[in-house]
Amino acid sequence: MTEDDLSNLPTPSAVIDLERLDANIDAMARCVDALGVALRPHVKTHKSLEVAHRVAARSGCRSITVSTLEELKTFVAGGFDDVMYAVGIVPAKLDAVAAAMAAGARVSVILDSAQAAEMVAARGRAMGVDFAVCLELDTDGHRAGIGAGDPLLLTCADLLQDGGAHLAGVMTHAGESYNCTSIEAIRAMAEQERSLTVEAAQRLRAAGHTCAIVSVGSTPTATFARHLEGVTEARVGVYVFQDLVMAGLGVCRPEDVAMTVLTSVIGHQSARNWIITDAGWMALSGDRGTGGQAADQGYGMVADLDGRILDDLIVIAANQEHGIIADRRGRAVDAAAFPIGTRLRILPNHACATAAPYDAYHVVEGRKVSATWAKSRGW
Amino acid sequence: MTEDDLSNLPTPSAVIDLERLDANIDAMARCVDALGVALRPHVKTHKSLEVAHRVAARSGCRSITVSTLEELKTFVAGGFDDVMYAVGIVPAKLDAVAAAMAAGARVSVILDSAQAAEMVAARGRAMGVDFAVCLELDTDGHRAGIGAGDPLLLTCADLLQDGGAHLAGVMTHAGESYNCTSIEAIRAMAEQERSLTVEAAQRLRAAGHTCAIVSVGSTPTATFARHLEGVTEARVGVYVFQDLVMAGLGVCRPEDVAMTVLTSVIGHQSARNWIITDAGWMALSGDRGTGGQAADQGYGMVADLDGRILDDLIVIAANQEHGIIADRRGRAVDAAAFPIGTRLRILPNHACATAAPYDAYHVVEGRKVSATWAKSRGW
Repeated sequence: MTEDDLSNLPTPSAVIDLERLDANIDAMARCVDALGVALRPHVKTHKSLEVAHRVAARSGCRSITVSTLEELKTFVAGGFDDVMYAVGIVPAKLDAVAAAMAAGARVSVILDSAQAAEMVAARGRAMGVDFAVCLELDTDGHRAGIGAGDPLLLTCADLLQDGGAHLAGVMTHAGESYNCTSIEAIRAMAEQERSLTVEAAQRLRAAGHTCAIVSVGSTPTATFARHLEGVTEARVGVYVFQDLVMAGLGVCRPEDVAMTVLTSVIGHQSARNWIITDAGWMALSGDRGTGGQAADQGYGMVADLDGRILDDLIVIAANQEHGIIADRRGRAVDAAAFPIGTRLRILPNHACATAAPYDAYHVVEGRKVSATWAKSRGW
Repeated sequence: MTEDDLSNLPTPSAVIDLERLDANIDAMARCVDALGVALRPHVKTHKSLEVAHRVAARSGCRSITVSTLEELKTFVAGGFDDVMYAVGIVPAKLDAVAAAMAAGARVSVILDSAQAAEMVAARGRAMGVDFAVCLELDTDGHRAGIGAGDPLLLTCADLLQDGGAHLAGVMTHAGESYNCTSIEAIRAMAEQERSLTVEAAQRLRAAGHTCAIVSVGSTPTATFARHLEGVTEARVGVYVFQDLVMAGLGVCRPEDVAMTVLTSVIGHQSARNWIITDAGWMALSGDRGTGGQAADQGYGMVADLDGRILDDLIVIAANQEHGIIADRRGRAVDAAAFPIGTRLRILPNHACATAAPYDAYHVVEGRKVSATWAKSRGW
């Protein structure tokens, strides 16, 4: 055990397995390359400049997607100059967008209403800024967005014509793909996401609008799409780390999960066959995304210090700073195999949620901690 | 609308209503005073020195409870010199405990196994430090702890006698009180928590051990306990903010919830009667603690900018940076009443989880932002 051994880190800590990270980055780069679209990875999963630069270098992409003004500011300051801020814009956030543009970045914002289009255009005119706007499409009934066939699409585009703002393109996120129960269903969702987005772009172009960006994306749909004809870019986020929800969808294997939480055994309840750890929902997140899947992983699967999955152990319950590990089938657990202080690694249900509270990732190659990568947080 | 008006804050933000905070602090101070025990409030809920100092000043208490080394360090540096670190200790964390002791604080750690007792005593001897240890009791089958009648109790106490560590007392947390479905059930849980803890203390004393601290606590059991005879202190955390889980238990009313998340309306799906906001699970937490209660509040109840609860509106779904507000009974919502940019305040299911990601609280008196209080995070 040397100074830079994984077993010397404080717990709980967020750990990235570099080999798995690179494999995930490369697999998606090949995937979107084969689909013939550009990659605009979402940084909300990792919020780390080091991860983003690594993705850019290995994938040959320059653009990114962000979900907060904090990400916008951090990643523009960190050298990314082509950014989509992919959460519906409100006027109060346009100063920060303009500041990123003034710092040299090409930034697009998104909206899905005439009211927002009017507000952005008016604010842009008042500020002397020409905001690039993508219209958000609803392709799966999941959340926000304009229907591809809704007349509102053209209304919004028209409202972006009077200076202050201009139409940059269309975008969607088929978040409903997370709820698919088969790869065929994901493929169908990918085609629905693609075809409706392309249809919207065609309608806008037919009406005389320029629609340069045709942007779709989610890790499941990008992974399984048969083709992305008419699409210009894919926005994917969680694939860099992968997680148990993705494994449950068939997008990856649990063995591909690159980000885990290092935890210490702090006690046992031997009569109940429980191992108590210091990774509760604060460290793992309260995400129960595998709860609706065929294999419910509780609050996460358990691996040893080397990352080898201990098949039958999952985190069955989580309090703020306590996790309870047990056999998924309720069988006996040998407490003696996990003495107080034993380090374990927990695979997350949802990597975006689990990574959120940490200020840094400890990067490991095998057990060796080879780097510490800062990450950002908040808004 | 002035500079320091609530409506000028960025969204999402964590907001504390000062009047409600003070009322919650004072109500618990009266409660534990009537019970005749000391208050050792848990800072894990708010993680704010300002809140902790306010509690201390208004309640006349000096001691605190922490759940992470980060809290230990921050609150000792901030002037608190009597701290219980109430998560099972592991040897690797004792250096930080010793550092807090060297800084002048009286710190107790907790453990519930012979193995941990041996480890702590051995490490203390090696370090030349005498660690104060409370034995953790299991009084509700909820999590960690030694049974009050378990011979292990005396074994552990004996192991703490050889220098390096000493027995400071016993402690428990009846977390199962959160799952009670009536006030009578909480009262019964409070008595179970009290009686088993006092029984353990008596057994230790009968065996010749000093057991100065007899510590129990949870907000529900402290609120409803009929008496706490034999107990020396109550550890309570969430009461300062209260939340919808507490309201569901009858511990408070929704109107008492002092910490809310300020959010902006970013869109609508009028056909589905949805209002889309920028407070998703990152801003609200993924906690669904009211899901098992009589009134399921989704991801939170909705209030207007003045904190008035909009009775029928709840956050029915949350993505990372998006919340979806709808009527709890599925009735029509007038989108025109909530234009783009409208500010709303969301009452949290679980205040500890919701407060976690924020770096600061904006303190309001009415709509006026009168202070910004830093908070800590992480481990």
